[in-house]
Amino acid sequence: MEPLVTFLAITASPPRLGDNIADLDRLRRAAAEQLQGVEPRVVWARSASVAAAFRAAGFVGTAVINHPPEGPELVDFLPDPPTGLVAMALDLGTTHLEATLLDLSSGAQLAKAHQENSQIRFGADILSRVHHASTPGGLAALHGAVIGDINGLARRLAGAAGIDVAAIRGLSVAGNTAMTHFLLNLDPYHLIREPYIPQVNVVEPPAAGELGLAIHPAAPVWVLPSVGSYFGGDLVAGVLACGLAGSEEVTMLIDVGTNAEVIVGNRDWLMACAGAAGPALEGGVARMGMRAGPGAIDHVEFDPDSGGLRYTTIGGERPRGICGSGVIDLAAALYLGRIIDLKGKFRPAAAGSRLVDSPDGPALVVAPAAEAADGRPVLFAQTDLDAVMRSKAAMYAILTTLLNQVGVKPEDLSRIYVAGAFGKHIDPRRAITLGMLPDLPPATFVPVGNSSLAGAELVLRDGAARRAARELVRKITYLELNVNQEFMLRFSGSRFIPHTDQRLFPSVPFFKDS
Amino acid sequence: MEPLVTFLAITASPPRLGDNIADLDRLRRAAAEQLQGVEPRVVWARSASVAAAFRAAGFVGTAVINHPPEGPELVDFLPDPPTGLVAMALDLGTTHLEATLLDLSSGAQLAKAHQENSQIRFGADILSRVHHASTPGGLAALHGAVIGDINGLARRLAGAAGIDVAAIRGLSVAGNTAMTHFLLNLDPYHLIREPYIPQVNVVEPPAAGELGLAIHPAAPVWVLPSVGSYFGGDLVAGVLACGLAGSEEVTMLIDVGTNAEVIVGNRDWLMACAGAAGPALEGGVARMGMRAGPGAIDHVEFDPDSGGLRYTTIGGERPRGICGSGVIDLAAALYLGRIIDLKGKFRPAAAGSRLVDSPDGPALVVAPAAEAADGRPVLFAQTDLDAVMRSKAAMYAILTTLLNQVGVKPEDLSRIYVAGAFGKHIDPRRAITLGMLPDLPPATFVPVGNSSLAGAELVLRDGAARRAARELVRKITYLELNVNQEFMLRFSGSRFIPHTDQRLFPSVPFFKDS
Repeated sequence: MEPLVTFLAITASPPRLGDNIADLDRLRRAAAEQLQGVEPRVVWARSASVAAAFRAAGFVGTAVINHPPEGPELVDFLPDPPTGLVAMALDLGTTHLEATLLDLSSGAQLAKAHQENSQIRFGADILSRVHHASTPGGLAALHGAVIGDINGLARRLAGAAGIDVAAIRGLSVAGNTAMTHFLLNLDPYHLIREPYIPQVNVVEPPAAGELGLAIHPAAPVWVLPSVGSYFGGDLVAGVLACGLAGSEEVTMLIDVGTNAEVIVGNRDWLMACAGAAGPALEGGVARMGMRAGPGAIDHVEFDPDSGGLRYTTIGGERPRGICGSGVIDLAAALYLGRIIDLKGKFRPAAAGSRLVDSPDGPALVVAPAAEAADGRPVLFAQTDLDAVMRSKAAMYAILTTLLNQVGVKPEDLSRIYVAGAFGKHIDPRRAITLGMLPDLPPATFVPVGNSSLAGAELVLRDGAARRAARELVRKITYLELNVNQEFMLRFSGSRFIPHTDQRLFPSVPFFKDS
Repeated sequence: MEPLVTFLAITASPPRLGDNIADLDRLRRAAAEQLQGVEPRVVWARSASVAAAFRAAGFVGTAVINHPPEGPELVDFLPDPPTGLVAMALDLGTTHLEATLLDLSSGAQLAKAHQENSQIRFGADILSRVHHASTPGGLAALHGAVIGDINGLARRLAGAAGIDVAAIRGLSVAGNTAMTHFLLNLDPYHLIREPYIPQVNVVEPPAAGELGLAIHPAAPVWVLPSVGSYFGGDLVAGVLACGLAGSEEVTMLIDVGTNAEVIVGNRDWLMACAGAAGPALEGGVARMGMRAGPGAIDHVEFDPDSGGLRYTTIGGERPRGICGSGVIDLAAALYLGRIIDLKGKFRPAAAGSRLVDSPDGPALVVAPAAEAADGRPVLFAQTDLDAVMRSKAAMYAILTTLLNQVGVKPEDLSRIYVAGAFGKHIDPRRAITLGMLPDLPPATFVPVGNSSLAGAELVLRDGAARRAARELVRKITYLELNVNQEFMLRFSGSRFIPHTDQRLFPSVPFFKDS
């Protein structure tokens, strides 16, 4: 499998007159026996300390080998048998960071942790952070925040696993292109300006010490490469984790985060695009929106008998808001209950007393004050609905524009992987009802969890995955939607429930009189 | 030829929506077109600055490519056409440093400079410096002295060539193993302790900035690899410069510096050894000894008619001492004039009034006070002669032990390259008379000047030479003389003029009654 870092047990014979090569060369020679004859390089800055450690240990111990793209690199020598070869995988998200600690010898997950991205104090979204990066000291502050966050996570993971943080010997990072720039102290200025150019897509792995990380200073930091400004290492990681590039059949990956990002293809070709379909679906727009967590309304159904709504919450707690999957369920339920029309507008007559005035204008009471966690009703406003309609239209337009571009029909897709919390909680049937996802058998949609993190774990464990990641960058064709006329037309056609062309959604009831 | 550093003229099309890869990846792609399709790596620490320089230059300019062993590395981007691609070659000697500045595009030598090794304040010889390295702060001081010396030379070379010192884009260094350790801040402790082990023989080229050098911080410092404690990069450079490893015929290289170092072989095999034959031959032992320079007696002849000595000096100046070649000429002349016997002892009856008492005991007046530069006679004492006898015996014993080891007769050698000032000034016939060099036709001996510096220049200019240097390290078998019984026997047999076995020197007169 060739993990990113390996241990080699070394037993070298001590030098003598008949075998008097230099200490470091002796170590490299011994290591080569376990590296298909390839002598690992040792950078000058570590030569003296590694050679001295090797001699001090009596020429017996453990060599630590990093595996960067240019070949094995020997970075340390340990006199005592190490307890474990530990590395950290990180999903470096715009709002949240999620990380795991792996034992690279066994592949076992030792610990898991997450935290909010503390860059939020410089701006909730990427755009404002990129602007902040242009202010004096701005990029350094954003970079410092990422490093601080990673160090915090690393310490917590190490604590949970009962090891020293410096015993973490490797790190892989999957982030979007902007987050990757902040991590690597690269200038993100042109990311958000046409023609949207990253400073670097494929970076040589720095050593953790160069970045100021608290893990072992020689630990390689393997950053998943980006394809473009709007297609980052997080998605490359997802493509790896879902095996799109190894599949004979055409499959698709949908990742709804701050953007909706979609990749389709097989082992011969891959095409990707992204668009702003996300916010409403992540609980980021609706006033009562929240991330999928305890107390979030995650499923809503229309009860034809009572004419009312039935909901469930995550953890069964009293409701405090609505998460992305709940929003989709709710909108679908409101359509099926004919409380909204095919344009996504409330029908006051049908809504009745559930429609109230709110600071955001007309709003539907999803959960009355008496049921809610904090004594305030959970409301869903017309403006929230409008956002959902835009998001669902964008999502469908993105998918269909992309599929049309590559000449693939929705029904030709053998699988659609749906990543993240969105994929985990969403009911595909409801998304189909809304006209957000194509009208395919629900089993086509496969939730894959945090595929960015899964991809980051993969590159820690597997050299083939690291090589594949770099090849992917060349292989993926990126379809720019910002200037795409077809996308705009498809977006307009998708701003109805389920769609202007109802023949595309045979499974969805169509109400002529709406 | 593939110099250590190359310039690539880059004209890339600016990014646009249909061609929106990252700036650095665009540059690497453009560079690859001129690098047989290989994209050069860019280390993380330079990624942002190189990408920014590329963009600021409008995607047109000059890429600076280093060529370390692991493949091309892009280190800089220049907006304006550079005036020249300049690098420095250095012979890092124990007593002297000698350096040249080369234009790598044309191969032309732009400047030359030399200076005394300022480490001399820590000890004149390697042994005392290695001991000093073990004292607190000792190694750092020795390392700092080398860096200071190189910076001084680099500034003088740059001044002579009319360029900025930071315009020096590469450096190659040929030094003995101890000097190489001091340069690279490696611990020399075990170099002088059996079994004589260097810390590192083959080092990855550090960047000049890492070492604190004043030349361009990204300049690679290509250090000629060592074979062992007593066979350093200076000799590897000499082997390269003389082409020993590429020759079908068996040839030999003799380099007399602080040690006498000898390599013999051809393209299939190489064997080397070294021994303490040097000091008397470099003017380092005799009280009147001096390096080959103005006023040094460099040639001496016995005038059979007058029974006196005739000498010449370097530069035709009044004599102030005797250099290595003068010492050998003198000893040979004294033998041919029968003023010394075959054991190298003065024959008082023959010496007559030229033999005087001196603070060093009996001494011969080579130049009387009236002729000498500073009004004091140039003397050559019995103790000096004894040193010459030891040196010449050691040299012959080294050569013949080595040749016997590989089963080659002296007359099988098609060429004997003689390096350094010793090779430049020595008259092989006189060395043969003394029994120092084998009795071969004088044309066999080819002076090659500073072959260490020539080898250092070669690795700057030629990638094949750099690869050959690393292969040499594996190819050269080192014969350890410190524990060699045969060497001790041969040494004893060589302590006569020309030799105990006069049949080995048919061209040398033998005086039965001496």
